[in-house]
Amino acid sequence: MSDGTVLLSHGSGGVQSQELIEQIFVRHLGNATLDGMEDSAVVDAPEGGRIALTTDSFVVQPLFFPGGDIGKLSVCGTVNDLSMRGARPVYLTSGFIIEEGFPLAQLERIVASQAATAQAAGVRVVAGDTKVVERGKGDGVFINTAGVGVLPQGIDISAGNAQVGDVVLVNGAVGDHGLAIMTLREGLAFSSPLRSDCAPLNDLVASMLAACPAIHVLRDPTRGGLATTLNELAQRSRVGIEIEESQVPVHTEVAAAAELLGLDPLYSANEGKLIAIVPEAEAPALLRAMRSHPLGAEAAVIGRVTETYPGTVILRTLLGTRRVLDMLSGEQLPRIC
Amino acid sequence: MSDGTVLLSHGSGGVQSQELIEQIFVRHLGNATLDGMEDSAVVDAPEGGRIALTTDSFVVQPLFFPGGDIGKLSVCGTVNDLSMRGARPVYLTSGFIIEEGFPLAQLERIVASQAATAQAAGVRVVAGDTKVVERGKGDGVFINTAGVGVLPQGIDISAGNAQVGDVVLVNGAVGDHGLAIMTLREGLAFSSPLRSDCAPLNDLVASMLAACPAIHVLRDPTRGGLATTLNELAQRSRVGIEIEESQVPVHTEVAAAAELLGLDPLYSANEGKLIAIVPEAEAPALLRAMRSHPLGAEAAVIGRVTETYPGTVILRTLLGTRRVLDMLSGEQLPRIC
Repeated sequence: MSDGTVLLSHGSGGVQSQELIEQIFVRHLGNATLDGMEDSAVVDAPEGGRIALTTDSFVVQPLFFPGGDIGKLSVCGTVNDLSMRGARPVYLTSGFIIEEGFPLAQLERIVASQAATAQAAGVRVVAGDTKVVERGKGDGVFINTAGVGVLPQGIDISAGNAQVGDVVLVNGAVGDHGLAIMTLREGLAFSSPLRSDCAPLNDLVASMLAACPAIHVLRDPTRGGLATTLNELAQRSRVGIEIEESQVPVHTEVAAAAELLGLDPLYSANEGKLIAIVPEAEAPALLRAMRSHPLGAEAAVIGRVTETYPGTVILRTLLGTRRVLDMLSGEQLPRIC
Repeated sequence: MSDGTVLLSHGSGGVQSQELIEQIFVRHLGNATLDGMEDSAVVDAPEGGRIALTTDSFVVQPLFFPGGDIGKLSVCGTVNDLSMRGARPVYLTSGFIIEEGFPLAQLERIVASQAATAQAAGVRVVAGDTKVVERGKGDGVFINTAGVGVLPQGIDISAGNAQVGDVVLVNGAVGDHGLAIMTLREGLAFSSPLRSDCAPLNDLVASMLAACPAIHVLRDPTRGGLATTLNELAQRSRVGIEIEESQVPVHTEVAAAAELLGLDPLYSANEGKLIAIVPEAEAPALLRAMRSHPLGAEAAVIGRVTETYPGTVILRTLLGTRRVLDMLSGEQLPRIC
């Protein structure tokens, strides 16, 4: 490890691989299970009869951004995917694909960030893998995480569960992550840089479920943003969704950056936001629970589920007109997560 | 999807992502869980109190080779890592990172191969993810799979469990995968091309455990080959291991190719081989069980666990001399899996 960068031999499975794993990965992520360096980790099965499983690869560029980095993102993304079924995230696996020549100091920052985020979210990284590809055959670091969560009895949260008459909520302003990345890439200078909203949502979801166990749908609007995710929910549940543009929270500086870049915050990725769909009667209690959590202070009711135009999302604009809010088509923001 | 290659928009999370997932991934891997296209899959928790978890990324080049391809490899690697703890593999997750411009027809072959291998191994792919990176920022396709297995009660198989006096077995000839890949890369022509041994070992392991529940150690000698893996076992178990070179099966054509390329089959990767370490009294029954399975027909006893030089592997050579068989140092075979 003398020249301070990752070498092909760090991916060989031999002496150098072992050094890399021990000096960076085990040092930061270390726990009894990971330290064993077995082919697979043996852990207690989560209680309760059902588990949730998910996987996500992270290819974000740049690797470091205001509010986070690829290591933090790799934990939040998978923790949030588990949380969106109402599951309590318990175990993560982590696979790194590293480009030859990547600075070891940056790798260590990423792993340390992954470890800190996992600890904050209360999950354990129990299995890992490291591969190295030649210079020019990768792009710094790609990370895959998979997650295992335990699903409490009685929870049935699914993209297909929205009912006509339900109310649609979000836990805060949309578009922060996408616009933070894009302004950074475009080299736009603002008096204060836009910050990604990257955050693990499991604790917020636990508070929400405590206040309102009958939540029908939870979904995090990542790639494709709020608009695309709402379309998925409308399709899966075979319902219409009507959104009030005036009620969708967007930070002023995000709206300004979006206008400058010709982007739409409704189609921009979020990494610490969720959409919740609940029976109307439960909405006030849920909104209160969300607002009393640090990650839901700006929560809002943004629309409702309708029986007209199943599979379609309608936006009531600021001007009072109605238009179809389509799914993202084409590539607005490559490698946003 | 008109020009027949993967576009950046296939990774956007929008319409084109949905099309790619439905037309290729769900079509081949489809099952009730995956079809739901939820943020995470909800599945029955494996019974029995303990589960095994593992993850592996696959960056092999070339993507297609005699005996397999990256899709098959991505299932075998993870199924085998679970099997090496004595766990029964049940669920897989699968994350693809695809380079822009990759031919859709090749992607489909890879996914179909992944699906066929999963079916053959009796595991279900229950969650997936697809990302696309720009041309020149990846290399065709990288795949990560994570796996969940159920660990039967009473099984305690670990790299740290080898005991002095134990016997060391392998289930067949070593070096096939590594030499198959290297001869292909080097463009070497043989009358019959070398074939990778790529295979899921869970059924073989089930037969072995039925014959001999007291197996101390199982490990698949992948990157770094037999020699490196034996060193890991010697270190973890704090024992010496002595190997009889004459007893280690190596296919004649593999030995010939290795000599031509200046490689050593003992350090070449395997993708369908395992090392088993068992009490001496159990070895004959285990060897019989292995030999009666199609993936163990060439099984052999190759050495024993000793108390001399803990952490060290000694090779008794064909000439009758003894030498230390070190761990792989440096990079012999980049991107072999």
